Amino acid sequence: MAASVYLDHNATTPLDPAVLEAMLPWLSAQFGNASSRHEYGRAARKAIDDARNRLAAAVGAHPTEVVFTSGGSEANNLFIKGGAAFFKPGTLAISAVEHPCVARPAGQLARLGWRLLELGVDADGRLDTQTFVDALDQRPRLVSVMLANNETGVVQDVSSLADRARTSGALFHSDAVQAFGKMPVDFRRLNGAGVHALTLSAHKIGGPKGAGALVVDKRLEIEPLIAGGGQERGLRSGTENVAAIVGFGVAAELVAQRMASASVFLAGLRNRLEEGLVSLGARLFASGAERLPNTTYFSLANLDGETLVAQLDRAGYAVASGAACSSANPEPSHVLRAMGVPAEIARGAVRVSLGTGNSAEQIDEFLVSLRDTVARLQRLTAVAV
Amino acid sequence: MAASVYLDHNATTPLDPAVLEAMLPWLSAQFGNASSRHEYGRAARKAIDDARNRLAAAVGAHPTEVVFTSGGSEANNLFIKGGAAFFKPGTLAISAVEHPCVARPAGQLARLGWRLLELGVDADGRLDTQTFVDALDQRPRLVSVMLANNETGVVQDVSSLADRARTSGALFHSDAVQAFGKMPVDFRRLNGAGVHALTLSAHKIGGPKGAGALVVDKRLEIEPLIAGGGQERGLRSGTENVAAIVGFGVAAELVAQRMASASVFLAGLRNRLEEGLVSLGARLFASGAERLPNTTYFSLANLDGETLVAQLDRAGYAVASGAACSSANPEPSHVLRAMGVPAEIARGAVRVSLGTGNSAEQIDEFLVSLRDTVARLQRLTAVAV
Repeated sequence: MAASVYLDHNATTPLDPAVLEAMLPWLSAQFGNASSRHEYGRAARKAIDDARNRLAAAVGAHPTEVVFTSGGSEANNLFIKGGAAFFKPGTLAISAVEHPCVARPAGQLARLGWRLLELGVDADGRLDTQTFVDALDQRPRLVSVMLANNETGVVQDVSSLADRARTSGALFHSDAVQAFGKMPVDFRRLNGAGVHALTLSAHKIGGPKGAGALVVDKRLEIEPLIAGGGQERGLRSGTENVAAIVGFGVAAELVAQRMASASVFLAGLRNRLEEGLVSLGARLFASGAERLPNTTYFSLANLDGETLVAQLDRAGYAVASGAACSSANPEPSHVLRAMGVPAEIARGAVRVSLGTGNSAEQIDEFLVSLRDTVARLQRLTAVAV
Repeated sequence: MAASVYLDHNATTPLDPAVLEAMLPWLSAQFGNASSRHEYGRAARKAIDDARNRLAAAVGAHPTEVVFTSGGSEANNLFIKGGAAFFKPGTLAISAVEHPCVARPAGQLARLGWRLLELGVDADGRLDTQTFVDALDQRPRLVSVMLANNETGVVQDVSSLADRARTSGALFHSDAVQAFGKMPVDFRRLNGAGVHALTLSAHKIGGPKGAGALVVDKRLEIEPLIAGGGQERGLRSGTENVAAIVGFGVAAELVAQRMASASVFLAGLRNRLEEGLVSLGARLFASGAERLPNTTYFSLANLDGETLVAQLDRAGYAVASGAACSSANPEPSHVLRAMGVPAEIARGAVRVSLGTGNSAEQIDEFLVSLRDTVARLQRLTAVAV
């Protein structure tokens, strides 16, 4: 069987061949532990320093602001729980559409006595400014609002929100895992606006699984989630995953270089896709909001999203019914529910997330295949009735 | 410059070429997110299941007892902090020779109100049984004693200690990162003796950096360190590092197959090395204790360990002056201090840790190089005086 057409880049991306090439020496002859004080160790240390410089340059940060982790989930947990560790339990505010790796550690804090505010969004998935300003009156210690949503692609106006939070004294964090590579992400500018920390992930930008980062204002005190040998300025212990970190650095550099042209290309494909979907009668979610250029989230009347994903998989197209990370969860998307989408419509949700390896031909063929699949499913439904 | 002879396998090991070969498909065409419900995702999930089966078989565990993490440090932190989360602050007992990734999270608990007992060892680095039994009178909630020490290679009688702890109700954990691959590690047997959890790491056994595991009795309640998408039975969220996990599974299988013959081979090399060291006037640490077959820890009178490591590096031999993870720390080894070794002697400590890729010829040449290095350093010292 030929490989399916991959239309699920918000779940993970193919490893860029240039990234793999950069990683391979660190998976063969250059196998040292970066903490070792010999030739092998020094080479590994230098490779990590180099990757830190590349990543920092790609997101407008200083290299000393980069804390490498095993991925985005770890970085989000590090900020939420590590940032909270220096306070007595207080108030914590997150948006209602955060990824579970922000919402669940926030829930852990709630069980330790923190008051958790989940800030609602409008029908297009945007955090309401007045809701946010009202929440600031509760004097939250920590605030976390994602730059762009993994399911809908909706971009929040994080700079403006952080600016409003500035006088409250809250530590402001933003999960930039989905934004990075698809829209400008500049930590210096965001930090100037009042953002204290950003989360990044390698495998969403053509890099390897197993590397992420918390880019963090050095004035913040954070308790390490993984304590031990003292790597990453004591904020993240454990033998560094040199190959993955090297790959992350190269992937970040490449994606930053290509972002401007990639986003134009992706938006073109996305618009082509959405025109076709609308002509099939699809409902597009969050279509009134500013969105990532690669993400389309839709449903078709009376069709179950899981079923549609399974049928499209058989037809040779890899798409998602929601966030991949919670696919084991049969509940309708918490993001759509927060947007006020009724459960029966949310259960129909299908996400297509494009990458620069996709083509207009693939989109056209996907639309044909989707039309045929829908027609078949509707016939089956008709027979069943 | 030719690559140095690598004699630092307790810091990290070369990636086995067969392991890299098994990993490569997951770094190219098979790039899916294991949570995705399409062809790419299912292939990744199946690869992880297969790796879990291999690792479980290699350590005598059931696959459902394996929780994959990003490495040994994360697994140790997961047990210490995640295990403690279900108790009110109580007493926690660890040996005085634990790796920092056990001792530091234990210190974090101490700052949250836990009483931390650090159990002393004898002059050969062995945990004293009476000390341990006395500590049990303090009713610790959690106990952590490593199977084998990273610096000295000393093997603790963990089965016997766990058996004594059984009636106390303590949760017993053992860091088996250094033991695995160099001595028998059988979770079913250890679990039967009263051990509830074991920590393992891939990069110490010819596998990749970026994968480790907590093998854990399913009756234990553990709070996740990294909460989010719910991977690894909810105990470790985050997109799985498929390639690293696949590599870990293959490395575990290979090292378990080879362990018996490898340990005989390594002990032969180690004895050859130690005879030579003794003839050079070296003091061998922990030589009276049962030790891993690959580890030699020694000092030479009036010579600084860091200096010796640097000189040997120039001469083409990669060795360590102590635990690689704490090499940035100029303090003498906490392991040697716990053994009662005076600071001035502990500062001279050099660790040689062998691998199956080493040869008798390398040992002989190393001894010649060491003798020359020592003679040169002693002349310099004499001139300086």
